[in-house]
Amino acid sequence: MKITPAVNDQNRIIGQVPANTTVEELHARDKAAQHFGIRILKLAPGEATLSMQVVEWMTQGHNICHGGFIFTLADTAMAYASNSGDLAHVALNANIDFLNPVREGQELVALAAEANSTKKTGMYKVSVTIKNGPLVAEFRGRTYGLSRKS
Amino acid sequence: MKITPAVNDQNRIIGQVPANTTVEELHARDKAAQHFGIRILKLAPGEATLSMQVVEWMTQGHNICHGGFIFTLADTAMAYASNSGDLAHVALNANIDFLNPVREGQELVALAAEANSTKKTGMYKVSVTIKNGPLVAEFRGRTYGLSRKS
Amino acid sequence: MKITPAVNDQNRIIGQVPANTTVEELHARDKAAQHFGIRILKLAPGEATLSMQVVEWMTQGHNICHGGFIFTLADTAMAYASNSGDLAHVALNANIDFLNPVREGQELVALAAEANSTKKTGMYKVSVTIKNGPLVAEFRGRTYGLSRKS
Amino acid sequence: MKITPAVNDQNRIIGQVPANTTVEELHARDKAAQHFGIRILKLAPGEATLSMQVVEWMTQGHNICHGGFIFTLADTAMAYASNSGDLAHVALNANIDFLNPVREGQELVALAAEANSTKKTGMYKVSVTIKNGPLVAEFRGRTYGLSRKS
Repeated sequence: MKITPAVNDQNRIIGQVPANTTVEELHARDKAAQHFGIRILKLAPGEATLSMQVVEWMTQGHNICHGGFIFTLADTAMAYASNSGDLAHVALNANIDFLNPVREGQELVALAAEANSTKKTGMYKVSVTIKNGPLVAEFRGRTYGLSRKS
Repeated sequence: MKITPAVNDQNRIIGQVPANTTVEELHARDKAAQHFGIRILKLAPGEATLSMQVVEWMTQGHNICHGGFIFTLADTAMAYASNSGDLAHVALNANIDFLNPVREGQELVALAAEANSTKKTGMYKVSVTIKNGPLVAEFRGRTYGLSRKS
Repeated sequence: MKITPAVNDQNRIIGQVPANTTVEELHARDKAAQHFGIRILKLAPGEATLSMQVVEWMTQGHNICHGGFIFTLADTAMAYASNSGDLAHVALNANIDFLNPVREGQELVALAAEANSTKKTGMYKVSVTIKNGPLVAEFRGRTYGLSRKS
Repeated sequence: MKITPAVNDQNRIIGQVPANTTVEELHARDKAAQHFGIRILKLAPGEATLSMQVVEWMTQGHNICHGGFIFTLADTAMAYASNSGDLAHVALNANIDFLNPVREGQELVALAAEANSTKKTGMYKVSVTIKNGPLVAEFRGRTYGLSRKS
């Protein structure tokens, strides 16, 4: 497979994105997701369900998960949901509401679903819950599509 | 120093927050910040300047920093800027616009400043730049103050 | 009915909010909603469905509804959904994604639903659609509860 | 001057935008802004300062300005700041934090400034204050540029 750079002329360059890259391939090269132990539970067109176990280094103070990592899980879910089509998508922006604390040892599940898409942009809603537990955060993000070179 | 729990009756419990905790003490107990190599460059009432070096595991694809970690740096800067007073603050929500890609090896600097505060809530604006380089992200967050037990 | 001021010690004073005010009473005193012809289609605890017809003065350029008025409808729906309980709620913040244009003569429907609530804060999601048509905007807002004096 | 439609292939159609339209011309055709009595105080490339007097119908409850109209003023300021160049810009999304109440009779001033721009997108920060008074709201929005037909 030929790898060429997918340059985002305006936003984040997302690195080398080969044509016809599957989300599984993206995940295999995604060191950040691996470092966090993020696992893919389910993929479908415009959808992704991921999970992440909160370990000790993810906490601030005693045993509460840093909000940035809840965001990271949600952002990763959006990325995987938005990169299943022909275009490589990068995040333009995102917002998050924090609703409940998450403690060390708990497992988070993020469900991302495309709520709108056009030729160039996409909008995704992501809900993060504690597995078999309460809603932890609501996230909404906008993506911008880049052509993939082949 | 007596440590007692600061319970957020409604949002994230931020763990054991002792009375009169300094931000330096918070940082010493903040495993997430340590894991990311986040350093405190400057602290002032309502302000915090932090830095973070982007290392290999922070990247997705080849060498581009995951947006979640830019958010994490900004969120940490807000936390340190908002926890310098009498109340322990937790984040209610935040939004971020991503403007430029960040590559492995680059150093990020986040400057958080309180833009508004009341008896119970605070609002913080955080700008993230590449050191001696362009603006990477704009972040704005709202915090809610919890009483610190002593 | 005795009317006393519900003072928001930190955010927006929402004027004179009598104890046990119904949303219908709020609407009767809500000159802004009346000016826009905003109608209540349905009310339930934590929910409100409102409609608004786009008339000529709501447009910018030729016949496209100003984004601020789509926000206004969504914000009003959140207000009505959040003011059905014991506390008077004011908006702390909100975000909106614009997805499709709205033209003069079209009718907008906003559906607000509480997605989280605590002793002091609430979070609401609002979807705005063209009646029998596509999604126009997604909105999420956070509210802060004030005691109602009686 | 030939008027042709500027079609937003993905978001809001902003109506008939002639080539080389000045912001003053946009304002002249902007019925929403006129209805609100929004005045242009200052224009510069990437900047706009607007004012709006809060009149009775803009209030909810007794004499407090509806948050939607504070958003409308900020959104209009972004539109005028972003439409001074070659491209017609439409809003992709926006967020707002409400900080202080505004009463009937007060004059609001919104200052919009471009914080980032690329070939296709722009990011604007808008601060709304009461004239000679406190900060009322902070707003940040993202725009998408459309080609103007001539």
